[in-house]
Amino acid sequence: MSWYLTNGPESDVVVSTRIRFARNIKDINFVNKCNNEDLESVLSVAKEKLSSKDLKFYRLNDMDDITRISLVEKHCISPDILRKGIDNTGILINDDENISIMVNEEDHLRIQVISSGLQLDDTLKLACKCDEEISKKIKYAYNEKYGYLTSCPTNVGTGMRASVMLHLPGLTMTRRIGKVLDVMNKIGINVRGIYGEGTDSQGNMYQISNKVSLGLTCEEIIQNLNTVVEKIIIQECNARKYLFEKGIDFEDRLCRAYGILANARKMSSKECNKLISDVKLGIDLGIIKNVTPEKINKLNIYTKSASLQKYLGEVLTEEERDIKRCEVIKNILK
Amino acid sequence: MSWYLTNGPESDVVVSTRIRFARNIKDINFVNKCNNEDLESVLSVAKEKLSSKDLKFYRLNDMDDITRISLVEKHCISPDILRKGIDNTGILINDDENISIMVNEEDHLRIQVISSGLQLDDTLKLACKCDEEISKKIKYAYNEKYGYLTSCPTNVGTGMRASVMLHLPGLTMTRRIGKVLDVMNKIGINVRGIYGEGTDSQGNMYQISNKVSLGLTCEEIIQNLNTVVEKIIIQECNARKYLFEKGIDFEDRLCRAYGILANARKMSSKECNKLISDVKLGIDLGIIKNVTPEKINKLNIYTKSASLQKYLGEVLTEEERDIKRCEVIKNILK
Repeated sequence: MSWYLTNGPESDVVVSTRIRFARNIKDINFVNKCNNEDLESVLSVAKEKLSSKDLKFYRLNDMDDITRISLVEKHCISPDILRKGIDNTGILINDDENISIMVNEEDHLRIQVISSGLQLDDTLKLACKCDEEISKKIKYAYNEKYGYLTSCPTNVGTGMRASVMLHLPGLTMTRRIGKVLDVMNKIGINVRGIYGEGTDSQGNMYQISNKVSLGLTCEEIIQNLNTVVEKIIIQECNARKYLFEKGIDFEDRLCRAYGILANARKMSSKECNKLISDVKLGIDLGIIKNVTPEKINKLNIYTKSASLQKYLGEVLTEEERDIKRCEVIKNILK
Repeated sequence: MSWYLTNGPESDVVVSTRIRFARNIKDINFVNKCNNEDLESVLSVAKEKLSSKDLKFYRLNDMDDITRISLVEKHCISPDILRKGIDNTGILINDDENISIMVNEEDHLRIQVISSGLQLDDTLKLACKCDEEISKKIKYAYNEKYGYLTSCPTNVGTGMRASVMLHLPGLTMTRRIGKVLDVMNKIGINVRGIYGEGTDSQGNMYQISNKVSLGLTCEEIIQNLNTVVEKIIIQECNARKYLFEKGIDFEDRLCRAYGILANARKMSSKECNKLISDVKLGIDLGIIKNVTPEKINKLNIYTKSASLQKYLGEVLTEEERDIKRCEVIKNILK
């Protein structure tokens, strides 16, 4: 099953866990110094050496726009790769969409494993296994002293970034989020919007990750991040408890959100994200009882603009999407 | 069954029809010139001559506040009688609450018959029958030249007022209501709020009635009013058609209203009236399909502050009412 439809541990606060390795092929210039020929040779290597029955290779410029954006919505590729131009870029991806390798994004290879909920250890294990398999087929740019060499110095070392997507409506509603984010910044944790660097928080979703990877082992990075996440979970749960105990006005807000989500006939993506966040919170607190977490997973993905069009198999204008979005929501919730 | 729970003709626009006769007892001063003794003798006459198994007599100051206000909410008594002080006032009322006689309001007797929907002829017939029965037992103040004598000159003549409660969301939303009300004023029709003179419109409800009764027969008054109502119905339906054809935004508004009404946990009376109006419109236009008009009738009455407390058999603070209101709504809608 697609990773984003499954439920993982601590899924009331942690939506997903992601591990990615930045890797470059030995003796080929880094992407920012590559000419077209170099880039094409990276693509050829990736396709020939790494593609298989389980891991299919696609050039991004062979895909239609909706498919590409829906891959961003599912966190399989970064929005950056679309922004920078998709010529000479590619992706290897498995059926469950939890393993993907971006080709010629910032580095030659960005190996990514994503899991539902908080699963740093298991996700790292799977990512290391992928990395190892690949290293048998491709010779990486590696330096004994610095470790894996990458385009951006912050990735040098393990080349790993571990990130966790958090749903923090409690901290947001109690206005404690600002302070929490400040503290994280100070202790070497990046906080970003829903689609990574330079993107906004949507529906109270925040992505946190390790800032640097040099000088630390993968296990140390994971452990640090896990400690931070556990602290945030406690704070988020306290904030929710506080809101819950404040009484009926809070419950009222969440129940109204459900009422609107389940009955509206036209809805923007932005409003939808907000309402889903409230409904998810209502479910996690036991206030809303007739919606399963599985339905929230479906809502979270199939109401996104491109995934909605993929799901319906139709190309839609924005207004059409706003209407069809409500039909899809009704269908999922019924 | 209580009149307000039944459905009458044209109930998509006309909520109810009311006929009342202002009558005074011969040889007793009008209410505004009565001393306490006179008022008590009016009460005695009313109780002794008019009360029966089917028409029970109550002194208003023997009732609790909630019961009195719920009678206003059901349009069985006027809010005026409560405002002016309830000493020396009474009511005769039947089980279905469609026949009631206020004692010592502006006149000694205010005989009132109320029906669901547009039923001017039948309601008049029943009111005349009541009036005739009463006239066999009580001698009215009557003048050959002027007709029935009443406290207020506008009631002299037949002493009749015919009124119709209209639900006009279409004209309100299209901002045509002002013009319609202006025209009515010019042709001798009063427009008032939901509880009569000096009250506000709530939930797009407007009460219209004949201005004077002198020089016209009851049948003429009814006929005039009926003509006006039929014209308003056409205009209201045109406005609704216009809104409906404007498309999805209008449907969205009505469906969201249903979603909020059915799911909120706390709601003021004012917001509730607004949402019920939208939901009723949605039902009448076939946009909202899972709510019967009978449920709207129930919502319309049992969400009102005093009737809510009567229904639950509890005395509640305003905040408690706002919460219990939502429980009652859920119960009715489920």
